[in-house]
Formats: sequence, C-alpha cells, structure tokens
Amino acid sequence: MLGLGLIGGSVMRAAAAAGRDVFGYNRSLEAVQAAVADGFDASEDLDGTLARAAAGNALIVLAVPVPALTQLLGRIRETAPGCPLTDVTSVKTAVLQEVQSFGLLERFVGGHPMAGTAHSGWAAGNARLFVGAPWVISVDDHVDPGVWTLVMDLALDCGAVVVPARSDEHDAAAATISHLPHLLAEALAATAGEVPLAFALAAGSFRDGTRVAATAPDLVRAMCEANAEELLPVLDRALDLLHHARDALAEHKPLTDIVETGHAARIRYDNFSRPEIVTVVVGEDRWREELAAAGRAGGVIRSALPALGSRG
Amino acid sequence: MLGLGLIGGSVMRAAAAAGRDVFGYNRSLEAVQAAVADGFDASEDLDGTLARAAAGNALIVLAVPVPALTQLLGRIRETAPGCPLTDVTSVKTAVLQEVQSFGLLERFVGGHPMAGTAHSGWAAGNARLFVGAPWVISVDDHVDPGVWTLVMDLALDCGAVVVPARSDEHDAAAATISHLPHLLAEALAATAGEVPLAFALAAGSFRDGTRVAATAPDLVRAMCEANAEELLPVLDRALDLLHHARDALAEHKPLTDIVETGHAARIRYDNFSRPEIVTVVVGEDRWREELAAAGRAGGVIRSALPALGSRG
Repeated sequence: MLGLGLIGGSVMRAAAAAGRDVFGYNRSLEAVQAAVADGFDASEDLDGTLARAAAGNALIVLAVPVPALTQLLGRIRETAPGCPLTDVTSVKTAVLQEVQSFGLLERFVGGHPMAGTAHSGWAAGNARLFVGAPWVISVDDHVDPGVWTLVMDLALDCGAVVVPARSDEHDAAAATISHLPHLLAEALAATAGEVPLAFALAAGSFRDGTRVAATAPDLVRAMCEANAEELLPVLDRALDLLHHARDALAEHKPLTDIVETGHAARIRYDNFSRPEIVTVVVGEDRWREELAAAGRAGGVIRSALPALGSRG
Repeated sequence: MLGLGLIGGSVMRAAAAAGRDVFGYNRSLEAVQAAVADGFDASEDLDGTLARAAAGNALIVLAVPVPALTQLLGRIRETAPGCPLTDVTSVKTAVLQEVQSFGLLERFVGGHPMAGTAHSGWAAGNARLFVGAPWVISVDDHVDPGVWTLVMDLALDCGAVVVPARSDEHDAAAATISHLPHLLAEALAATAGEVPLAFALAAGSFRDGTRVAATAPDLVRAMCEANAEELLPVLDRALDLLHHARDALAEHKPLTDIVETGHAARIRYDNFSRPEIVTVVVGEDRWREELAAAGRAGGVIRSALPALGSRG
C-alpha cells in the first residue's frame, strides 16, 4: 500500500482482515505511527518498501492523490518495475496516461473503489468501508489477465462487488453521476442563499438536492477539475435540457420534454438490475470486451471469475 | 372543507381529532362515501354545505386544485360571502388574485401546509400528516387579524408549525427550494439516461440528486408551470452560475466561485435556526410586517399568538 489515508488505510485493514500479508508506506510519520500502533506493518521509507515489494513480487496499490503519483511512479520504475500495479483513485484516464508515461503500463490495471466518508486520514479508515460497494476495475485493451485477476481478488477480499469498465467510460459515467450532481447541488444551494425565506421553507427536495454541497470545497474542486474533459459534455447536455425548460416556461408552454425524460430515466434507474457476471473466463478470447459489455449492462462480479491458466 | 383529497381529507381528520366540528364537500361521490364510512360528516351537495357554513359562520377551507377554484369561488360568493376563507394550495399569488377577482379578498387569508406523500385521494390522508410540518400563512397587506387567528388556530390544531410569509415571497422561495430542485433533478436523470455505465456506477450523489425525479410527471409540471413567473428568475440564476462553471472548466480555471458559494450557503442552511415567534400581538400596529420579517429570519409559531381584541 503506497499511501495510508482513508482509502489506502481501509484497503490495508480489509486486506489484513482477509488474511493477506500487507505492508505499507506513507510520507508523513503520523500516519505511519498510527498504523504501527494499530498493529500494521508500515514505514516511511519508500525505497525500502518498494524493494520489499520487488523481492516478493507484491501487488503495489497506489493510494495517493493524483498530484503525488509522479514522484511515486518514478521510484517504482527504478526499484520495482516488474511488480503488478493498481490504483484506487477516482479519475482513471489521467492515471492511465501517467502510468504509461513512466513505461509501467504493461503490469498496470486501474481500479476505483466507490466508497468514502466525509472524513480523511488513517484514523478515518475501517476494514468494512468497501463491503457491498462497487469497485471498478479497468478492462482497457492493454490489461494483463494475470494482473487483472490479482486486482479482482483484492477487491473481493475487501468485500466489494467488482464492476468491470473501460477507463474512458468510467470517467464519463463518473462525470455524470458524481461530478455533475456536485455542480448542480452547488448551484442550487448558492441560488437559494440569495432568496429571502428560502431556507425558512426548505424541506426534502432542497435538502436532498444540496446534500453534496456540504462536501469540502477542495475535494469538489479537485474531482471536478481533474475530470473536466468528461464533465464538460455532460454539463453541456444538462444545460441544454434546462435551457429548453426555461424557454418553455417563458413562453407558457408545457414542460413535458424534460419532465417526462427525467422521470423515465429515474424509473429506469430504480429498476436497473445488477446481474452477477459468472460466464466470462479471464484471459479467453475477447474477455475484456465481454466484461466491459457486462459491466455496462449493470453486471457485477461477486465471486472470483475463473482465469484461463487456472482451469482444469 | 371543500375538497377531500390527500390534503383536505387530512385536515378534516386532524381538525376532528383536535375536537373541532368539521364538515366537508367533495365533487366525487366515492370520496364522500369513503369519508362517511370513516365516520366523517361529508356531502356532495356544494350549495347545502355552503349554506351550512354561512349559517354557522364557519371557516371555509379551499382544498381543491387551482383550476377548480373558479367554480367554487363563484358559489361561495353567492351563498357564503361573509365566511372567513383560507386555502391549502401551493401557489399563493395566483390564488390571491383569483379570490380577489371574486370580491372575496377581505375575509381571505391564504395558507400552504408543506406536507404531502407520493399518494393522493381521501384514502391516502391521515390525521398526523401535518405534525411538525411548516404551514405557511400569508401576512399580505389586506389580511384581517381575526381571520388570520382562525387560520393559525387551525394549523396549530393540526400539529403544524406556522410560518408567516407574504404570498409573493412564499412563491419565490417555493420556486427556489421546490420547483428548481425538481427541474435540476429531471435534467440530471435525463442526462445520465444517455450515458452508458452511468446507472451501473450511480451511488449516493446521483440517488439524492434525482430522488424527486421519481415524482409523477403531471404533478411536477403542474407546480412548475403554475409558478413560472417566480421559477424563471431563479432558474436563470442557477443557469448563470452553471455557465460560469462551464467556462471555468473549459479554460482549465478553478471552480472556486460556484463551489465556495454553494458550500457556504449549504452550511448556512445547516445552521439556520428556527426561533419561536412569541412577541408579536396579532392586530397591533405593523403586526403583518413584523410577522413577515420574523418568518424570513426562520421564525415559527408553535403556540397561538395573542390577538389584540383577545387581550386583558
């Protein structure tokens, strides 16, 4: 584990609870001391940790913010270039490009456990953070079946359900279901803040619609700005729908389009099924395409898929 | 009670439970029969009901959809023009104008109990629907202190907390905290409906942000379209904020403005206090202005305010 914050610290606890041999590095001494005090194997010596990983061919998990990746990847290239490598950050295409620029793509499979709390740091983590949560694992064209299986096993050991997805599709979906809702919530809260009596009458619709506006501004900015390329087109689409509604209201025409479409989509979401993916064999012909299609259709992996080399 | 649907039927039950003498009218025989079967005094004879109200100088409660008001107000003008009059519909300025056009303004005080369920009709009602809910009572320039007190007493008997507000401010606030969230939720759901993988990854932010898109399209259209005049400026304000965010994203500039403003507003809302209004005497000099200001500041009435004529 490289990084022992909320996510990294929780993966470490969950992996250890599942009986795995896990050791970690963190830049700040406080987190290392806290992890050691809690009985974990942690160090602030990056090169030592990487040398250990290389010696054991350990799966390296990048659990640091995106801006800190560059420095880590440089050291991994020097000390542990042959280790299987994954990450647990939220924007997949940017990480993929960064990893590629260091020549480490071949052993890399990106991941994104979709869980979190309002808090951060080692102390906020817990071994059950990922239980039942979707953990996206990328099935981009380059991914190696062996590394993919290692990452799948880690996610399942943490209690997550695995959603296979291409990195670009993940980022477009994340922009739509996470970053766009944040911007709409901020706009709603800011608008209401200017209207006398609004807070006095606010009830469920407003509370639900602005809940994520309570998220720390730095976090919201970081995730939206890092995914600007995917966020722009979906924001434009939402603006387009809202402008049509605006024009209809101004001309005293019915709001049928936006209301019917929105309602139908929400009902489709409520009825969206989550079938278990069981028939794909990792490593067989077109396994990445099959998993991407199954994930798109709502499929999740709840127990380890067989791998080509491991059968019979 | 004129109208025995969800709201009217719930007011009837709550008023009866508080020991009031209450009788009602409904256009459809089914609701009347259901109310009678439940032990209530209900009829489908409008003129007979109004004659009874006139004889007893009863407080008449309009509990029908806005389009049905015209017909009722014409009959009230003929049969019970002297009765105190209130309503329980959601858009206050439109009702005020309608009442005024029938020459019934003098004895009218508008109301809006802010409670509801996803269901409708007599069977969906219950006596505890308004317990703890805000019930807006209008303090427009014309309102009579005696009628105001009658409406306040009814709301308190139903277990609601009373929020005094001017009709125009109510409608602007309702546009902001109820109708705008509905449009944003529809836009978000509709946008996500077009993005592969969006539903597969959707979690809390999306669920919260689209919850009200599950509301029946007819209801959403009715309330947004009826309040178009107040909804347009707040929709424009939200669009303006979102366009600024869009431009910042496109130019790789920080999203500081919208995120900081939205976050600050939501935190202000979380800390918004609800002081009890206790010092205003209904009917004293400037009592309407004082109540409007107190309501704007978050004030609520939890037990009956004294009235000028009722003191000492």
